[in-house]
Amino acid sequence: MKSGSISVTTGQRMELIDITRQIAAELADSGIDQGICIVFNPHTTAGLTINEGADPDVKSDIIDGFKMMVPLDHRYKHAEGNSPAHIMASLMGSSLNIAIHHGSLRLGTWQKVFFCEFDGPRTRKVHFHFLEG
Amino acid sequence: MKSGSISVTTGQRMELIDITRQIAAELADSGIDQGICIVFNPHTTAGLTINEGADPDVKSDIIDGFKMMVPLDHRYKHAEGNSPAHIMASLMGSSLNIAIHHGSLRLGTWQKVFFCEFDGPRTRKVHFHFLEG
Amino acid sequence: MKSGSISVTTGQRMELIDITRQIAAELADSGIDQGICIVFNPHTTAGLTINEGADPDVKSDIIDGFKMMVPLDHRYKHAEGNSPAHIMASLMGSSLNIAIHHGSLRLGTWQKVFFCEFDGPRTRKVHFHFLEG
Repeated sequence: MKSGSISVTTGQRMELIDITRQIAAELADSGIDQGICIVFNPHTTAGLTINEGADPDVKSDIIDGFKMMVPLDHRYKHAEGNSPAHIMASLMGSSLNIAIHHGSLRLGTWQKVFFCEFDGPRTRKVHFHFLEG
Repeated sequence: MKSGSISVTTGQRMELIDITRQIAAELADSGIDQGICIVFNPHTTAGLTINEGADPDVKSDIIDGFKMMVPLDHRYKHAEGNSPAHIMASLMGSSLNIAIHHGSLRLGTWQKVFFCEFDGPRTRKVHFHFLEG
Repeated sequence: MKSGSISVTTGQRMELIDITRQIAAELADSGIDQGICIVFNPHTTAGLTINEGADPDVKSDIIDGFKMMVPLDHRYKHAEGNSPAHIMASLMGSSLNIAIHHGSLRLGTWQKVFFCEFDGPRTRKVHFHFLEG
């Protein structure tokens, strides 16, 4: 297994950032040909998802949808005031599995890997693990 | 690692389809006795989940719940008009982990593996990866 | 791969229970130094998530958020009356990936592993799988 981290700088309170190129570059450096890539988010007010990367409107529609689904103005108990971001983090999930095939990430035609910022702007880390197999 | 794909034909705009037998048959063919099965959905308007398979009403109740949670009639930006399906895809997630034990998928008593169509009907692919270990 | 199960006793209809120590103790027993830990929930009215463990209010706010998001009083078809719990199970997901580094779970500073009970109180099982690599 080869592991490492990339850095992601977010510019808004909530946004999806395409990190596919960064992960793919790390995979190319690793020289691993076949296996599984695990992407892991170590933060509790952010998440990871795989979705469409061709039209940037999809990213903002997903953020819009999450803002409408998760009650933002409820009187939560957590004093930091970012409970909606914690809820969204659990909805998205903390990790992704992507197959490695001939040294590349085996994503679908329209799929990209997104870091999901729910309590930015911040500088964040994303871990990756490449398991050979 | 052994990898492959199965085909899933969906008949409705939104539905859950039990693919447990297809994955289990591929596992039996592989001859792998112990390890991890990763199921991966390469589409951006579909997802995967594990839930109850005994009562078919659970499948339709999950679809009903998603339709009530995700705003369907909002004016999204994405011109294709299927933003709710992209949002639902991110809510469900793109992959599953299932342990392989004595050559079988180690699911709970009531658990089945479901492909989640959110923008059908279509013919879809689902990838599987069996990691020995 | 080393596998096993832990037992979790839940005391309420819906609650998040921190199981990090139990998983970490099993990892210490395994002697595995590097690899991936997969945590798997075999129940269809429960889930798993990674979120903040420092302030217990985050756990209850996540439950509050889920109760507001998932329609509880809809006339679902499933006769057992626990369809909201099935929907929440799919929203949370059935498994987690956590890297193993120097014999420890490689979680972020504020992250803990939570079992999510949505139809308790019950005695539940959680499976773990440690893949060396």
